[in-house]
Amino acid sequence: RTQAAALGRAYLDLNEKGRARFLTLLAEEFDLEEDDLFRAVSELKRAKTREEKREARRGLREALVSPRARILTRFNALPQGVKFLIDLRADLLPLAKKSPVLASLDDDLKALLTAWFDVDFLELRRISWNTASGALLEKFMAYEAVHPVESWEDLKDRLDYDRRYFAFFHPRMPDEPLIFVEVALVKELSGNIQELLDPAAPAQDPASANTAIFYSISNAQRGLAGVSFGGFLIKRVVDELVREFPGLRTFSTLSPLPGFRRWAVDAFSDPSIQFLPQEEKRLRRLRGDVDVGPWLAEVVGGHLWKEDASIEKAVRPVLMRLAALYLTGEKRAGGGARDPVAHFHLSNGAGIERLNWAGDLSKRGLDQSEGIMVNYRYDQKRIESNHEAYRGQGRVVCTAQVRGLLKG
Amino acid sequence: RTQAAALGRAYLDLNEKGRARFLTLLAEEFDLEEDDLFRAVSELKRAKTREEKREARRGLREALVSPRARILTRFNALPQGVKFLIDLRADLLPLAKKSPVLASLDDDLKALLTAWFDVDFLELRRISWNTASGALLEKFMAYEAVHPVESWEDLKDRLDYDRRYFAFFHPRMPDEPLIFVEVALVKELSGNIQELLDPAAPAQDPASANTAIFYSISNAQRGLAGVSFGGFLIKRVVDELVREFPGLRTFSTLSPLPGFRRWAVDAFSDPSIQFLPQEEKRLRRLRGDVDVGPWLAEVVGGHLWKEDASIEKAVRPVLMRLAALYLTGEKRAGGGARDPVAHFHLSNGAGIERLNWAGDLSKRGLDQSEGIMVNYRYDQKRIESNHEAYRGQGRVVCTAQVRGLLKG
Amino acid sequence: RTQAAALGRAYLDLNEKGRARFLTLLAEEFDLEEDDLFRAVSELKRAKTREEKREARRGLREALVSPRARILTRFNALPQGVKFLIDLRADLLPLAKKSPVLASLDDDLKALLTAWFDVDFLELRRISWNTASGALLEKFMAYEAVHPVESWEDLKDRLDYDRRYFAFFHPRMPDEPLIFVEVALVKELSGNIQELLDPAAPAQDPASANTAIFYSISNAQRGLAGVSFGGFLIKRVVDELVREFPGLRTFSTLSPLPGFRRWAVDAFSDPSIQFLPQEEKRLRRLRGDVDVGPWLAEVVGGHLWKEDASIEKAVRPVLMRLAALYLTGEKRAGGGARDPVAHFHLSNGAGIERLNWAGDLSKRGLDQSEGIMVNYRYDQKRIESNHEAYRGQGRVVCTAQVRGLLKG
Amino acid sequence: RTQAAALGRAYLDLNEKGRARFLTLLAEEFDLEEDDLFRAVSELKRAKTREEKREARRGLREALVSPRARILTRFNALPQGVKFLIDLRADLLPLAKKSPVLASLDDDLKALLTAWFDVDFLELRRISWNTASGALLEKFMAYEAVHPVESWEDLKDRLDYDRRYFAFFHPRMPDEPLIFVEVALVKELSGNIQELLDPAAPAQDPASANTAIFYSISNAQRGLAGVSFGGFLIKRVVDELVREFPGLRTFSTLSPLPGFRRWAVDAFSDPSIQFLPQEEKRLRRLRGDVDVGPWLAEVVGGHLWKEDASIEKAVRPVLMRLAALYLTGEKRAGGGARDPVAHFHLSNGAGIERLNWAGDLSKRGLDQSEGIMVNYRYDQKRIESNHEAYRGQGRVVCTAQVRGLLKG
Repeated sequence: RTQAAALGRAYLDLNEKGRARFLTLLAEEFDLEEDDLFRAVSELKRAKTREEKREARRGLREALVSPRARILTRFNALPQGVKFLIDLRADLLPLAKKSPVLASLDDDLKALLTAWFDVDFLELRRISWNTASGALLEKFMAYEAVHPVESWEDLKDRLDYDRRYFAFFHPRMPDEPLIFVEVALVKELSGNIQELLDPAAPAQDPASANTAIFYSISNAQRGLAGVSFGGFLIKRVVDELVREFPGLRTFSTLSPLPGFRRWAVDAFSDPSIQFLPQEEKRLRRLRGDVDVGPWLAEVVGGHLWKEDASIEKAVRPVLMRLAALYLTGEKRAGGGARDPVAHFHLSNGAGIERLNWAGDLSKRGLDQSEGIMVNYRYDQKRIESNHEAYRGQGRVVCTAQVRGLLKG
Repeated sequence: RTQAAALGRAYLDLNEKGRARFLTLLAEEFDLEEDDLFRAVSELKRAKTREEKREARRGLREALVSPRARILTRFNALPQGVKFLIDLRADLLPLAKKSPVLASLDDDLKALLTAWFDVDFLELRRISWNTASGALLEKFMAYEAVHPVESWEDLKDRLDYDRRYFAFFHPRMPDEPLIFVEVALVKELSGNIQELLDPAAPAQDPASANTAIFYSISNAQRGLAGVSFGGFLIKRVVDELVREFPGLRTFSTLSPLPGFRRWAVDAFSDPSIQFLPQEEKRLRRLRGDVDVGPWLAEVVGGHLWKEDASIEKAVRPVLMRLAALYLTGEKRAGGGARDPVAHFHLSNGAGIERLNWAGDLSKRGLDQSEGIMVNYRYDQKRIESNHEAYRGQGRVVCTAQVRGLLKG
Repeated sequence: RTQAAALGRAYLDLNEKGRARFLTLLAEEFDLEEDDLFRAVSELKRAKTREEKREARRGLREALVSPRARILTRFNALPQGVKFLIDLRADLLPLAKKSPVLASLDDDLKALLTAWFDVDFLELRRISWNTASGALLEKFMAYEAVHPVESWEDLKDRLDYDRRYFAFFHPRMPDEPLIFVEVALVKELSGNIQELLDPAAPAQDPASANTAIFYSISNAQRGLAGVSFGGFLIKRVVDELVREFPGLRTFSTLSPLPGFRRWAVDAFSDPSIQFLPQEEKRLRRLRGDVDVGPWLAEVVGGHLWKEDASIEKAVRPVLMRLAALYLTGEKRAGGGARDPVAHFHLSNGAGIERLNWAGDLSKRGLDQSEGIMVNYRYDQKRIESNHEAYRGQGRVVCTAQVRGLLKG
Repeated sequence: RTQAAALGRAYLDLNEKGRARFLTLLAEEFDLEEDDLFRAVSELKRAKTREEKREARRGLREALVSPRARILTRFNALPQGVKFLIDLRADLLPLAKKSPVLASLDDDLKALLTAWFDVDFLELRRISWNTASGALLEKFMAYEAVHPVESWEDLKDRLDYDRRYFAFFHPRMPDEPLIFVEVALVKELSGNIQELLDPAAPAQDPASANTAIFYSISNAQRGLAGVSFGGFLIKRVVDELVREFPGLRTFSTLSPLPGFRRWAVDAFSDPSIQFLPQEEKRLRRLRGDVDVGPWLAEVVGGHLWKEDASIEKAVRPVLMRLAALYLTGEKRAGGGARDPVAHFHLSNGAGIERLNWAGDLSKRGLDQSEGIMVNYRYDQKRIESNHEAYRGQGRVVCTAQVRGLLKG
């Protein structure tokens, strides 16, 4: 253990190259012994009695724990051991993409972190301006991944009395949020993020709110990628909100479609793209006989509709239909929605409630989602069945509005 | 008590005029009964036995408590009762300057607050970036009275690991600082505030510091004016610092001379002003035969020396001598140093250690103190005797540097 | 302040005699100067303008603060300063009964403590087995003044989930309860303390309780005698209970009549005592022509009715009538009920709800109250009017049961 | 997860038989699929590239996680989930001794708990009379396994200012100690537990202590048997003590030899037992020609030496020699000291410092250890080497006193 602490301190002093060498050494020199493993496998095959089988399984399990996994466990003894391992994994992840041996080291590390970050060990804390320390608030500003915090004033607005802000923490890292969610308590489904974050908008009486909008969910620790607890966060937060505000009826996100614009430009650039007749008509009226695909790619590329109402009028139905198609029809390798945000919420049992034109006109909103935003709705009664439908059959549950968009 | 609460809430809803009327009513209609008072006085005069005297004193003491004092006490039952009374006094104080009856009401209120804010009831808390809430930090920014906090970054710098920040709190107002002090841990006496607050300056290792500089002390509650605990704050903080950093040897402020410039302009404008021969010579060399008094008033009025090294050279000795004179010789009505900051520290047992030319070149520093700063030193062994000397004989303890300035 | 600390430590090292000398010295040598006082009185008489009057009052108030009062205030600087002063007063009180000069010192001390222990500064804490420390629980066992705690098991029973236990604390003495109350949550008015404290009785579901029985209220600090906050405790506890258990309808004590038995023996020994005809008849049947007064004194003196049902039958109506008479008719010097417990609750706005025969058969219960217990009821709607009736006109509000007892 | 919660609640309502059936069902019906396991083994054998091998290992590791292990993990979602699993294991352990399939279930459960109870997740807390709650103190009384706590007074003595009391807690079970240790701060090695626990003994000034005696170490959770953190507890406590009392030089236990008496009776009953000449002589002097082995068995069986000084004189050297032999020479199956307490401390790196005759004359002390007590010493400089010697070569480090005893 003392050696592990020394090793850990040594690692922190290394530069990027040094760290890569350290990790490679750890991965290669302290991998498990294949001979031991195969010996354990043979034992298992030979085992006849229950007692022998039990012993053999124990042996096999033991043989599967590599020396490097034991070393990693020991780092936990460092004063900030858990954080150390998470940050080490943040260093490791980009390297692991290019190296199978480092990927294998990451398997060990991820297994360790997954056991430690069992969702039931996590502590849900409400973050408020009156209790959170300056240091913690500063981290939330830095870790915000969806709608960047402009200033301390902006952060304070997000902690106002008609807002709620929750984060998961691990008992061994009380000063480091793992994931956090920002909620607005409103009177009807919000479709526009600028309105929601408008510093000039007056705060509402949360007691009369019927709708909770989850408008930002951010992972705070890169080194916990793939160790998932986001879905639990939402469920736990819904429980907390219901307890505090029994009048809440609707729980919905206001989310970007981060991959949509790139996908749309590609789609428009594909000569084989087909438009619906009424779309075709509207586009022709504007552009005459010109080939509309490349033009649309240009429009989206430069957000040209923003300054020209006639373009917007013609282009909006096409983009909204494609957005619905992108969310409900486009699959990733291995199944599941292509869009990562969609995949996250649909996996957690949400349904697609509504698409909102011009819902985020910030630069980031335009560049990622061409300004469109989605509401994913968490309906407590349907979470289980939605989740089953999506996970089991890949079926995306959505409302008539969304189905209508698909049909144009 | 319920009525007091209702009255309190009514007061908060009044505008400025309404509040003035409310306070006047309270002062006039609920003053003590002179008849009762004089009856109690007569009882006291008649009393012969010890038992009678005791009874009579009790009666007199009782008769001196006005109905309005009882009403004020009841306001304490409000959820934020103590804060309410402090804020009410903040409203009252400017009015009391013009009205004897309101001044008399203030006597009652001040007596009440003085009993409640006995310094031994106050809690000294170290304020740190890692523990203080956003709401509390915001208050420190707002209440800073000496060197305005530029930004959250500036505040964070003042809470850095080579700084200490302490505040007094009352148990009934855990979220409201009463007074606070900012300390820098350094290796030699600091004479320049801009250097001390320079965001680019690297943090020092506080363990090797030998000097603590109290560079800002602010009262946070206007309504506690005259209820003094500032001196205790410094003593308590010195104790805390010594405990944490046994290597500290010198405890000194870095302070402005808020009334100096105005006083100096007046002095220069006075035709009877006399200069020392060497000062005269230097000034003549620069200005020839011109009458230097009015010119110096102009120089100080416009801080003209700042841009012209030859003016600075001639003017600096005069201004430094006058500053020393101002601090040590100018008295307020009733005795004591004319400068409020000097009076505060000298009363608390500090001595004048050093005057620093160009110690604060901010606009405020120039406008108040013509850029000069003072170090008041708290020498634990001399605090008592300094205090006695100042309070008893009006004697200001100062170092050879200061005495040298006086002689030019 | 340093001297005060030294004085305080010296005091703690003195024995009983030494402390008496110390207190006498303090009382005599540091009393206020009568000359100063009379000078201030003359100033006041001379004062004409408002400003002069204000100044004169200030002077008089100042002159009424004795040097010894200032010294006492300074003791607050001791680490356990407030507790020190309370314990000093506990030493002082018995001495003050015999010495006017010490009584006068106590006036100063009591005034100080009364200002500091303003009820709004006190903190109400619920005491529970799961949170209170061993050291604190031990204090509650020691300070219990009504129904002695037999064992840790007994204390734990009083903290069970169908009980509540509240205490007032002062922020400067977080480990020292000031006064505490024990509550049982039940389904109907309790009339018997042994049943209530029976360790074998099963705990009830508090959620279905409609009645809260305050069965023990103890002052924990002798040195705070006469600094009253007991009535506020009950009101605050009623508020807490209503918040936690909205089903509660009745708030009532189960209380002893500590002075009743002694008073009854005296009454029976008085040859002029008169009995009601039906009482007379019942007693004659048992005792023939014998003079019943002295015999009743004997019965009560030896609790003879306890072992003999026929005696109990004849004696019970007499004792119950006399108990009702004692509570409602017997006055103390200065008005108010003669019984201290009755005076406390009636002053706080309670009414007498019910007298309970054989409500406390413990030795203490028999020796003080001849086994009878009273329910004083706090009816939130009538607290004010009951209080006014009692304080203003000396009227005791009671139920038909009590009035019936009076009539026999 | 909801199902897991329902299952958990159902389990708690079952009686002993029902629980055994539940556990057997869980063990048998939700064991892992051997087919999947062998398929994963084959994959591993087939794997050629690094990427394939990595994939195969992942598959094998996955296949080794049984459905019942997943179910057990889910129980963590229960409000007291971790405690539930520990108590479930306490139920399981005695059953697992008789059933291989339940033993195999225990393998899964123990693996889970071992990961969760990684020693670095545990929190060391000092237990004190001033801070620990009544409920917690009660648990320490109940969980004490070495020297039973006689009363609350006894517990308070163990928390006195010359004692220290530490326990490990897990963040998910803040109210449940895992293991705890009791320490006395003294001036020389203690050899007698009755003296150490004597309520009449005055408390010592801990600042002048040079020796810390660990006189009781108890595991509080049967369900964590075999999940070891006792050794870490001692190391962490030594660190804490050194920090608080820099004057401490010696860290030693005062421990029983729980298996000694039974072992000694067996040894004496063995006809082949040999005595040293001087022992023989002393015994013959007392017993003449009689066969001393059976007589010694009788003496030890009835502690006959306690009442007869001549017997004690003859018997003491034999018993002390045998005790030394028992501790240093007797091995358990698989190596290591036969005595469990000896094995625990020697594994942790302690050495045997001293054997104490008549060190525990309580009934338990006589029945287990024939009154003898051992000091195991933790010498920070030798912990590592002692541990290596014992673990590696089975060598027990002991002092000259112990070696002397062995030679008689």
